[in-house]
Amino acid sequence: MASEFWTDDPTRLLRVGRGFELRDVDPDATPGTDSDKQLGRDELERQAQVLRGLQEKLFAQSRLGARGRLLVVLQAMDAAGKGGIVNHVFSQTEPYGLALTAFKAPTEEERAHDFLWRVEPRVPGPGVIGVFDRSHYEDVLVQRVHGLAGPEEIERRYGAIIDFERRIADDGVRIVKIMLHVSPEEQAERLLSRLDDPEKRWKYNPGDVDERVHWPAYMEAFQTAIERTNAEHAPWFVVPANAKWYARVAVQRIVIAALQELGPEWPEPDFDVAAERARLEATADLRWPG
Amino acid sequence: MASEFWTDDPTRLLRVGRGFELRDVDPDATPGTDSDKQLGRDELERQAQVLRGLQEKLFAQSRLGARGRLLVVLQAMDAAGKGGIVNHVFSQTEPYGLALTAFKAPTEEERAHDFLWRVEPRVPGPGVIGVFDRSHYEDVLVQRVHGLAGPEEIERRYGAIIDFERRIADDGVRIVKIMLHVSPEEQAERLLSRLDDPEKRWKYNPGDVDERVHWPAYMEAFQTAIERTNAEHAPWFVVPANAKWYARVAVQRIVIAALQELGPEWPEPDFDVAAERARLEATADLRWPG
Repeated sequence: MASEFWTDDPTRLLRVGRGFELRDVDPDATPGTDSDKQLGRDELERQAQVLRGLQEKLFAQSRLGARGRLLVVLQAMDAAGKGGIVNHVFSQTEPYGLALTAFKAPTEEERAHDFLWRVEPRVPGPGVIGVFDRSHYEDVLVQRVHGLAGPEEIERRYGAIIDFERRIADDGVRIVKIMLHVSPEEQAERLLSRLDDPEKRWKYNPGDVDERVHWPAYMEAFQTAIERTNAEHAPWFVVPANAKWYARVAVQRIVIAALQELGPEWPEPDFDVAAERARLEATADLRWPG
Repeated sequence: MASEFWTDDPTRLLRVGRGFELRDVDPDATPGTDSDKQLGRDELERQAQVLRGLQEKLFAQSRLGARGRLLVVLQAMDAAGKGGIVNHVFSQTEPYGLALTAFKAPTEEERAHDFLWRVEPRVPGPGVIGVFDRSHYEDVLVQRVHGLAGPEEIERRYGAIIDFERRIADDGVRIVKIMLHVSPEEQAERLLSRLDDPEKRWKYNPGDVDERVHWPAYMEAFQTAIERTNAEHAPWFVVPANAKWYARVAVQRIVIAALQELGPEWPEPDFDVAAERARLEATADLRWPG
């Protein structure tokens, strides 16, 4: 994908590798580009066409039996921009081929089951891009930070997540896991601006401040979760997100790269085109009212 | 909503009233406008902003307890443009507030239940726009045309649909039912162009020709279903759809009018804004890494 916007491949630059340290990631950085907000918006529009084309092929081929699909997991601290990613990147796709799940605090029924019980039914079907806004990773992040599950149970969950992701990957699900990384200063600014703007105030949740004060513990939990569950078939990407325009265009690029690896193609029909044309033409004089 | 595009209100013109006769609707007409395709596209973009603004308020107020929501039922013959409506009208909304269900031929499990069993769980929740691509109306259309259900059972279903829609309307669901109306000639052209284009061929289904020959019986079934289930709280709109640009901009306008009737407002916060600001500012010096 030729582009003047990217000077280097953000998919490679943002992918978590050996020896990854979250504390070394600068939330203000814009790896892979020297461009600015306006150019970022232009690139977002340009890449949207590419994304939509790939999505349409992925969906089309599933109608004739192909099983490929994509699961995008979004994790972040509050106000880091998950909603913006959904509304600016994934809203550019076709609704038929998009399955968004926003995981909330588990219900009483969900808590009575294993933590993956509510996740399994949300795995996207063939041809679909599934997006998890929060996910099974909450069960090793918020639950660890607040001690809602003990260390042994958290250990068990890392293993369960690895097995789960391995299994669905073997079944044709391409998995991409993304952490949007903001600084605590940036989060404070965004939460304040939500309080200030009557049209944004509904997004503010007093609980966000309660979580915010646990920032170091959350970062430690992210570091460990990422280390423990990063895999070739289910890679983590950590995206600097203080600049919203950068996070959006970078996530879009990561998603495009994953779709390109799935390599969708227009499917071959399973019917005889000439015969169908003849059948159709035989009904050409149909009129109503007659 | 001031607009130079509309010379008359399409919502009023397309709404089914007493003495409605489907055979009197011209699929080539463009009620309420003298404009053309290019102006239709411009209007679609303009109205999209209005739709998105209303949707965001509807979703926002639901986060603080409001129960209003919208259900849009789309019914039509094959290739009439349901998919285009979804991809050009509803793809312009935010994914969080959109719940699309494409109903297929019922599964064995679904057939073992009453026809509304699979519909109930798909009724949109508070703040959401639900879109049904096909719906419970298939059970009085295709099932009637092919005699899959007898006359008494079809009669029972009209009554069951009326009760069902009355009940969910009483619970806060604003219902809008739309038939996209194409001519059989236009359908033939569209099916042929699907056959001709390798990038559209996957949309072609040999079964479409089998259904097509039952056109008069389908129109009779539509006429009766519309007559029997048209109601103040669940009105039918019949939208001429030979011109795709018209159908899209008209459906968009109908949806906007329904949202305006719901009258969503930015919700008032249920917390003390000044107190929250103080709590947040007390954490302003949080840094990580420390």
